[in-house]
Amino acid sequence: MEAEIISVGTELLLGQICNTNAQFLSKRLAEIGINVFYHTAVGDNPTRLLNVVRSAEQRSNIIIFTGGLGPTKDDLTKETLAAHLGKTRVEHKQAMDRIHNYFKQRGIEMTANNRKQSEIIEGSVVFPNDHGMAPGMAIEVNDIHYLLLPGPPRELHPMYDRYTIPYLQSLFQEKYTVHSKTLRFFGIGESMLEEKLIDLIDQQTNPTIALLASEAEVSVRLTAKAKDLDEANERIATLEAELQARVGDSIYGYDDDSLASVVSHLLKQKSWSLAAAESCSGGAISQSFTELPGASEVFAGGIVSYSADAKMNALGVDADLIEQYGTVSEQTARTMAIQARKLFSADIGVSVTGVAGPEPTENKAVGVVFIGVSTKQGVEVFAPRLSGSRQNIQLRAAKYALFYVYEWLNRL
Amino acid sequence: MEAEIISVGTELLLGQICNTNAQFLSKRLAEIGINVFYHTAVGDNPTRLLNVVRSAEQRSNIIIFTGGLGPTKDDLTKETLAAHLGKTRVEHKQAMDRIHNYFKQRGIEMTANNRKQSEIIEGSVVFPNDHGMAPGMAIEVNDIHYLLLPGPPRELHPMYDRYTIPYLQSLFQEKYTVHSKTLRFFGIGESMLEEKLIDLIDQQTNPTIALLASEAEVSVRLTAKAKDLDEANERIATLEAELQARVGDSIYGYDDDSLASVVSHLLKQKSWSLAAAESCSGGAISQSFTELPGASEVFAGGIVSYSADAKMNALGVDADLIEQYGTVSEQTARTMAIQARKLFSADIGVSVTGVAGPEPTENKAVGVVFIGVSTKQGVEVFAPRLSGSRQNIQLRAAKYALFYVYEWLNRL
Repeated sequence: MEAEIISVGTELLLGQICNTNAQFLSKRLAEIGINVFYHTAVGDNPTRLLNVVRSAEQRSNIIIFTGGLGPTKDDLTKETLAAHLGKTRVEHKQAMDRIHNYFKQRGIEMTANNRKQSEIIEGSVVFPNDHGMAPGMAIEVNDIHYLLLPGPPRELHPMYDRYTIPYLQSLFQEKYTVHSKTLRFFGIGESMLEEKLIDLIDQQTNPTIALLASEAEVSVRLTAKAKDLDEANERIATLEAELQARVGDSIYGYDDDSLASVVSHLLKQKSWSLAAAESCSGGAISQSFTELPGASEVFAGGIVSYSADAKMNALGVDADLIEQYGTVSEQTARTMAIQARKLFSADIGVSVTGVAGPEPTENKAVGVVFIGVSTKQGVEVFAPRLSGSRQNIQLRAAKYALFYVYEWLNRL
Repeated sequence: MEAEIISVGTELLLGQICNTNAQFLSKRLAEIGINVFYHTAVGDNPTRLLNVVRSAEQRSNIIIFTGGLGPTKDDLTKETLAAHLGKTRVEHKQAMDRIHNYFKQRGIEMTANNRKQSEIIEGSVVFPNDHGMAPGMAIEVNDIHYLLLPGPPRELHPMYDRYTIPYLQSLFQEKYTVHSKTLRFFGIGESMLEEKLIDLIDQQTNPTIALLASEAEVSVRLTAKAKDLDEANERIATLEAELQARVGDSIYGYDDDSLASVVSHLLKQKSWSLAAAESCSGGAISQSFTELPGASEVFAGGIVSYSADAKMNALGVDADLIEQYGTVSEQTARTMAIQARKLFSADIGVSVTGVAGPEPTENKAVGVVFIGVSTKQGVEVFAPRLSGSRQNIQLRAAKYALFYVYEWLNRL
């Protein structure tokens, strides 16, 4: 099976967006053993799209399109391909119902061009769009599989994982299972992690080991190919045991876990609640909890006391203390954590104060951050030194705060 | 002049890196008026690379390669292209001196494969590499310009800006400028906007019109080609006036503006401060302000009163009111906005309470949201009906709140 990816959208050719879809799909296709030999990006232009499709048909038996399934006149992937394959387009009832519901819920009138999104190429297998309106689809003609997927990543990713992978796996004669487990790390850099695992990475065959760095976090994805899930899990477990022995201290979670979700889980176990007082992290801690369904069980509330006035008036930090030590100080972080806990009647209070930049504040350098964790048992203040842009520092500060809470809860 | 970009490297096809070079080059080429109609990524494989080159020669007169100029056996772009064009490769003295110096400076012995990096295709114009070893080059054969550039962005970007742009500009008989302006919309969907502008979109030539949708927002980019910046701006102004007349009500900003940045700007003009009380938006309003440098001038603070307890205790919403109307109600939104303003001694208080899902709350459906805006002059409550995933609704609720504040400030 040889695949290629055709990304459709003039915004790619103008450089307005980067082709992250090609990267996402390539990574995922490699995991199930499908080779990708070409990526192409082409604009919203039927003649040029057709040109690209014809080249692809000469060399690949899986052609995956992303983009061009939307409601506007520019969106032409489905129309161009249907005409090229000599197929008609038919309305897909579930997709149409979904679009109707969307507009009904919002009390807005549906415009005519939205109807176009519910159409599929006759005879195709439909991939429902759980996060948008246009469904994806797959159709086989002359031993070539054409897959049409939406362009927006938040629609594409879940559709691919839920509906497209099973479809692609069904194409193999000899079936095998590919299964992955992701280990989530905090407090260790990508290069350090690689150094500690380099011999395993060099020898990798099955499972494979992939390191992925994101904002202040690193993940390691172990992917095994086996005759069934049990065998795949066994292979993964053997390798994971080796990783646990070497770098287990820095693993905080697995698969879809996030720092907020593991903290939330620990809080639930203890029937504890948490409150946050955020200065330089600007609300990122609160957001990471409220993103989780059922957050109100464990998240008592948060305050974004960005200004000195807010720290004093709304949070009740003593003016003398701020005067003496400054808003970015161990002492202020300590008091913020205590006051957050009191204000929201929570079991644990966490605070963040620091300099996110771009300019130093109160003679403190960009990246200086103080994080307080307060419980009935006492308060502890941490001072990680962060770097990066303003937004990097804000987000990293929030993650460090969650990580300290995680470690604290684990020690209890 | 029609260009296409060919990125060479198996790491792209495995999804290990994203093709940011294609984005960078496309943006830069558009700025000097060169249309890019195709991007291709291909692995380190001479047969497949040649396949791609042959397609490109059928349709473009500028073919830009990135990657495959390095020292290893995998790096084959130059070798493959020289053979294809019937040219020899010759050592480039300055490049060789540069490589020698590099190794001498670092006290490392040069390996044989590094010599390969100093080679150029005979007869090409050389682009020195000020940040690495392999030079770039351009060669014209049969009216097609082949440009070979290095893959690492830190080598590519400065080489392109310093040496490649002048080369490309020298190809034009008549020079011209390309300039864009982006109009930012809120409160109007992509399909509705297209319907209102469809005749302009259909007739577009210069300026061109591009619609781009993101989370609850739509942007329209107007791009003009002209002999100089003044003429380009004039062309854009004429078309913009037409858009203003038709859909000006939904335009909140331009280019890099965000809802938070335009609200922040209006607040600064009035020397006003804003405070937020967020329930279902979970801190997203606070974050959107604190992301902006100098936020403390206008953002007094925020409270994430996610639970009913937090609304009562920390924010001071009356328990009876919550009992009677529920936490998701017009009345609660109203009081939250008033209390936020008081708690942080702000001029304007904004509140969000709603059901982000996935389950209904207090018998209210997912997507029901109430937004309050409070000033000394009084309070107003809005009830947009939102849809999407939990995270969509949280983010959209925050954006609606900012938009209502924006409209309110504009009316004052």
